[in-house]
Amino acid sequence: MIILGVDPGIAITGFGVVRVEHNRHIALGYGAIRTPAKETTARRLEAIYRELTQLITEFRPDCFAIEELFFNKNSATALIVGQARGVAILAGSHAGLPVFEYTPLQVKTAVTGYGRAGKQQVAYMVRMLLGLESTPEPDDVTDALAVCICHGFNANNWGRRGE
Amino acid sequence: MIILGVDPGIAITGFGVVRVEHNRHIALGYGAIRTPAKETTARRLEAIYRELTQLITEFRPDCFAIEELFFNKNSATALIVGQARGVAILAGSHAGLPVFEYTPLQVKTAVTGYGRAGKQQVAYMVRMLLGLESTPEPDDVTDALAVCICHGFNANNWGRRGE
Repeated sequence: MIILGVDPGIAITGFGVVRVEHNRHIALGYGAIRTPAKETTARRLEAIYRELTQLITEFRPDCFAIEELFFNKNSATALIVGQARGVAILAGSHAGLPVFEYTPLQVKTAVTGYGRAGKQQVAYMVRMLLGLESTPEPDDVTDALAVCICHGFNANNWGRRGE
Repeated sequence: MIILGVDPGIAITGFGVVRVEHNRHIALGYGAIRTPAKETTARRLEAIYRELTQLITEFRPDCFAIEELFFNKNSATALIVGQARGVAILAGSHAGLPVFEYTPLQVKTAVTGYGRAGKQQVAYMVRMLLGLESTPEPDDVTDALAVCICHGFNANNWGRRGE
């Protein structure tokens, strides 16, 4: 099973593509889609949709995983991130991929075993679980890989129900 | 010039299609795209995108107008509305339409002459300016028509700059 994980944002959308074989995770690709601040919102959203669609064509993932987001304070930021998130989900859905959403608690628990793990701990475990030489930058890429791993573990658990 | 105005939301997306001839506004169509709460976010976003794309095919608007949104409190709502807004803008942009954004202040000023006008006053003026027998329901439809009128007046003003 190949999972496309996305951490959306209007300026930087992190992505990870992870193949899961039993309990082993292999990073097939990861990186960030960056959109220039001088472009209009419409053009930036188009770029996010287009580049995710290209990644889906290239890697042919079986599913799409994304973190649920919570904002305590800034509703203006929430609106802007929401726009990018909506377009990202649409790219997955238009490509026929089932879309899975996980809370930050679920992602942290899956990756580190601890729901309140810090960013560094998550980054460390992502690096270890995928056998990467260094931590991917920026954070958005690590977060996208973490949600891939989270879905990988969860999908494996579901598969084991029938055993 | 034909304007597609949209007031996006995950449950209800209001739309209006208005033709502007000099300073006269004619409503070609208006209504609401509703998505069932039992559907997944991905399916609901797909429905908004699909129905807006169908409206663009049907009415062939020249441009797309949408209100900028501000949330004082609820960032969870902002995120959800943001997703619908991103998908709506993408539908316009994918169809090649220029996207225009207006603040609530600009919309209210354009429609009523008063930036702090209440909902009833806006609804009344939308009905008068478009010569409708009754106020369109729900509010989202009226708001979508209001942003059409706002763009109509603004586009006309731009056109007059050269005179």
